[in-house]
Amino acid sequence: MDIIDMKKMTQFNHLNLFSMGYRDRKGKEKSWIFASRCDEPCALNGKDPVPDAVVVVPFHWEKQRLVLIREFRVPLGGDQYGFPAGLVDKNEAVLGAAARELKEETGLTLVRTLRQSPPVYSSSGMTDESVSMVYAECQGEPSTDGNEDSEEIEVLMLSQKEARVLLETPGVKFDVKTWIVLSMFAELGRI
Amino acid sequence: MDIIDMKKMTQFNHLNLFSMGYRDRKGKEKSWIFASRCDEPCALNGKDPVPDAVVVVPFHWEKQRLVLIREFRVPLGGDQYGFPAGLVDKNEAVLGAAARELKEETGLTLVRTLRQSPPVYSSSGMTDESVSMVYAECQGEPSTDGNEDSEEIEVLMLSQKEARVLLETPGVKFDVKTWIVLSMFAELGRI
Repeated sequence: MDIIDMKKMTQFNHLNLFSMGYRDRKGKEKSWIFASRCDEPCALNGKDPVPDAVVVVPFHWEKQRLVLIREFRVPLGGDQYGFPAGLVDKNEAVLGAAARELKEETGLTLVRTLRQSPPVYSSSGMTDESVSMVYAECQGEPSTDGNEDSEEIEVLMLSQKEARVLLETPGVKFDVKTWIVLSMFAELGRI
Repeated sequence: MDIIDMKKMTQFNHLNLFSMGYRDRKGKEKSWIFASRCDEPCALNGKDPVPDAVVVVPFHWEKQRLVLIREFRVPLGGDQYGFPAGLVDKNEAVLGAAARELKEETGLTLVRTLRQSPPVYSSSGMTDESVSMVYAECQGEPSTDGNEDSEEIEVLMLSQKEARVLLETPGVKFDVKTWIVLSMFAELGRI
């Protein structure tokens, strides 16, 4: 398969649709619509990929708790349980963004990075959005004083048992990355 | 925070942008652009959420291997390592879709479901897309005879050691869910 051309189909500020022309395995020309946060979709500009966003998996070592946030998400019209996360600013280092978002959203301080992913893709059938996963130890007391006006966040510090209970609670909406890590934590007590 | 209204901004077949009007914590009216696969964004139609797609985490018990696919992804303009996945057809059961996609993409047969997530969200800052994660044991020999013309897939059956090597390989593009599960598998030899 190969790419023939690409057209930007909308002109919004933060998110747009693109149409990619491509040839399938049999040589037939087709098109594919996808969403991108980039002016030029990142994966095709030939540069080393930089993640759009960072997702922090924070473990509070002193309290032995996994940190999650419950946050109002406009596209879902309701609350979702997820990890602290946010867009990486232009020229900002990924780990700097991780520490900043963790502090803004939870009040906690990132003290040690345990592991970090390269840019990995959120849902590559519909978007080229990529994130870097940062597993980190954190310390301090939770606070939402740093939240922006468009953020409405509750910080949760979960034991292994509380993780199990949350996973079994009907009607709770989870981010997919959070559900995967939380399921492992519920079973093993570690990240 | 609360939702004021929602407008469909584009008219494509499979993916569209929507603008959601909302009030922030201070009562100020704002708008948020997001992408959705649904005609009426799923999270707001008041029905029980049905996942847009299914993602299979297949473990081949007999060979003791985690199954991944390497697949050309149009929005990335190149290959990505991920799990077998696909849209759930209308009126199709989630586990039926899981078995179907696994068979089409890898030739393998789903024999036992280990665990299944509710609909969980891919990236709720930019889309209401949801998936159901299905961890399953599978059997058989890998084959790509069932691939569609728009699919170009290689099936990988990874040992714990091979998972470690793949994670360390520079330049490899991973789906985020796959990177998280593969990292745990590389460390623990299990899913």
